[in-house]
Order: sequence, then C-alpha cells, then structure tokens
Amino acid sequence: MTLHRFFVEGGAIAADRAILRGDQARQIAGVLRLVPGDRVVLLDAGDEVELRLDRVTASEVSGAVVARRPAPAEPRLRLALGLPLLRGDRSEEILEAVTQLGVSRIVPFTSERSVVRDLSLQKRERWERIARESAETARRGRVPAIATPTTWPGLFEQLEAPVLVAWEEEREAHLVRAFARAVPALSLVIGPEGGIAPGEIAAARARGARTVSLGVRNLRSETAAIAAVALVLALSER
Amino acid sequence: MTLHRFFVEGGAIAADRAILRGDQARQIAGVLRLVPGDRVVLLDAGDEVELRLDRVTASEVSGAVVARRPAPAEPRLRLALGLPLLRGDRSEEILEAVTQLGVSRIVPFTSERSVVRDLSLQKRERWERIARESAETARRGRVPAIATPTTWPGLFEQLEAPVLVAWEEEREAHLVRAFARAVPALSLVIGPEGGIAPGEIAAARARGARTVSLGVRNLRSETAAIAAVALVLALSER
Repeated sequence: MTLHRFFVEGGAIAADRAILRGDQARQIAGVLRLVPGDRVVLLDAGDEVELRLDRVTASEVSGAVVARRPAPAEPRLRLALGLPLLRGDRSEEILEAVTQLGVSRIVPFTSERSVVRDLSLQKRERWERIARESAETARRGRVPAIATPTTWPGLFEQLEAPVLVAWEEEREAHLVRAFARAVPALSLVIGPEGGIAPGEIAAARARGARTVSLGVRNLRSETAAIAAVALVLALSER
Repeated sequence: MTLHRFFVEGGAIAADRAILRGDQARQIAGVLRLVPGDRVVLLDAGDEVELRLDRVTASEVSGAVVARRPAPAEPRLRLALGLPLLRGDRSEEILEAVTQLGVSRIVPFTSERSVVRDLSLQKRERWERIARESAETARRGRVPAIATPTTWPGLFEQLEAPVLVAWEEEREAHLVRAFARAVPALSLVIGPEGGIAPGEIAAARARGARTVSLGVRNLRSETAAIAAVALVLALSER
C-alpha cells in the first residue's frame, strides 16, 4: 500500500517527533480518517520521513519518526530554470511540466522583448499551488522554489553557474553536447515570445553564460523550456 | 530577407511550374501584395521549392521552380507518436509541441483507461490546423500526418517498428538507452491519464513493442509525450 505524502516546512519535524496542524491535520483526521498506529510520509527538504501517528485530532496530528531517507525520485542535479513571463497560461504550463521533470528552482523574469511585464499576487499564488501539486504528482521530495520575478541582468546575478541560454541563433553548440553530465548544479534560460535581443546575449556572455541550440527547428518558448529540462535531466540520470 | 512559406499538396507542382489557388493565391495577391518576379517557398513533401512568380491574381498565382532542396529543418528520423485522446485541450498541447519538435505522424487512440473516447469532426479540424501552424512556426518541410483515431490493438497494427511504449512500471530500460540512434524510423506510445493496463502491455509486447522508462518521477501524459519526443529527436540529431 502506498502511504499518503505531505510536504512539510522546516520546523514540523524536531528530532524523532513531528507535528502537523491546519489543513494537513484536518485532511489526516477528517478526510483520510487515519488513526494512531497508521503511517504517513512527510517530505522534508528532499527527504522522505516516515511517521507513525500516535495522536490524531482535527487540529493537531503528531507521531514518531520511524525512518528518514532521501526521496528516491528527487534528482541529484540542482537545476534552475530562468522562466520568462508569457502570455495566457503558458508560463503555468511550463511550470507544471518542469516541476514533474525535476527542476529545483524557478526564476521568473521579464526582458526587452517580453510582452507580459509582471506577475500578479493572484498568479503568484497560483504558481505556488501548481508547483506543489506537480511535485506531488511526480512523487518528488521537494517543491521547487519560485523566486521573485527579476529582470534580465538580475537573472544572471541569481543563477548558479554554469548558465546555458537557449538561443535560436546559436547554430553550433547543441545543448546535448554543451551539457557536462558530472556537474552538481546547472541553470537554463529560455527566452520570451519575441526572443532574446542581441544586446542581452552579449550581457549574458559577459556574466559567463553560454548560448546553446535546441536543434534546427524553431520552437515556441514553452516547447523549448520543457524539451531543454527533459533533456538535461534524462542525460544526467540515464 | 526570409521568403514567405506555403505548404502545398501533391499536384500543385508539375515539373518546373507551380500553380496556387484559393486561400494561398488570395494571401499572395491580396495580403502580401507580391508581384511577378517575387519569390516564395513551397513546402512539398519535405522539400523546399523556391518559386519565382510570373502571374499573380487573387484567384491564381503561378511561377517557375528555380530551386528544390530537402528542407533543412525536417528531421531524417521518421518518428510516429501514438497519442491518447486526453481531457480538455491537453492532446492539442502535445500536438503543438511535438509538431514543432519534429514528429512525422500522429496516431490518436483510445484504450482501456481512456476518459475521452472520441475525436469530434470539429476537434479533428482543429488538430489539422494546429499541426499546420506548428509546422510553419518550426520552419519544417512537412506537416505531420494525423491518422484516424484507433484502438490499442489498432495502434500496434499501424505503427512502424521499432515501437517503444513509455510505461511507468518499467524500471530498467530508460528511453535514452533503449533508443538506437541509427534507426530510420521509430514509434513512441504514451498512455492516457489513467495509465496503461497490464493486459494492454502484454498485448503490445506480443506485437513486438518494448516498454521504456522516462525516469523515476511520475509524469502526466502531456509532459511524458513532449519529453519523450524531445529526447529521441535531440539524440538522433546531436
């Protein structure tokens, strides 16, 4: 039987005990109707923590930690994605897919040719929910962090090296060849609908980023983002 | 300057002449306002055919073929995708992305756990339009063919070997390792929302198909389809 899984924040688990409150307690007591002796899995910063419940009420559930192990579905590679704000719900489509695929951190940005210029509080909350639900679907041990939206220069201050920028005018370095499998961390950047301006490419290179190709066909931003993340994670784990 | 591109059906080009009628003639004469002496590119079964116009009216445009070459963005691998009918517009999302990525043929299907059971005429026309527009976006030389929806057994009668079925219970053979780069043709099958039933896996194997893994994380059908197609094409062309 597969145990129910709950993402928890730092502080829920202390030494060999854990306490859940709020929605999670209500779900365990009221919806799942678990009782003392039942087990659940808590997902804590990439670890799966198995908990044997000893107290279950609608306001507070607590239990003893009986096992802790790294979540087997959590990638070893720390992969960040510079994600342009796109029209409609295209950024959300990307967020859902790349979270399932295993990205660790999302840095939303706007750049010279961006059409959408900001992320409303309502959309931001929707993004947080999509990231959590997609991490649950994928049985990951961690919900990807979503940074505050930034600008093109801000992106290159935040992203961990090496940084690879998918650029339609790059003809030589295909991502498959440019990516060194052994790195512990990698950042990918995908351009917005209108592409990346030449001055932006120059600025990115001046900060140490490299441009890569995703092949000879012209891809929309959302296809490019999903394809690039899928490639990097498959090649790092094959 | 980039020339305007038009997909044509067999028959539009005969020897060293071509004739366009209907919407394409109206677009060339009325919208683009091209004149005799201007050039356009016709996309004919994977080839780019350069045409120098010598007669332009709103009902008929004709010209002389001045060059024919294989479209450089058209993949050499013939890749077919067995695409489940999914809820909402999730199948259309996949169709758009995998056409940009370079699939040659789409075979829609329903199987035991499918929720959506048929493709309305209206949806079918929408699919044709999405395939054509996505092929244009990607600058391909060919619009992927969309087959009539079929059943699970019908799928394995139609798909060209080798056939790889992405299955969440396959733990050993990762697609990246299972895929032989040198093959001229390949077929991929992705399951519907509810997954593929064990009896269906047995039937697929009896027809020579192999099951493959897309990694340790659980992916929704649309993420799995886009990731699998991106991987196969990137590895066949790198």
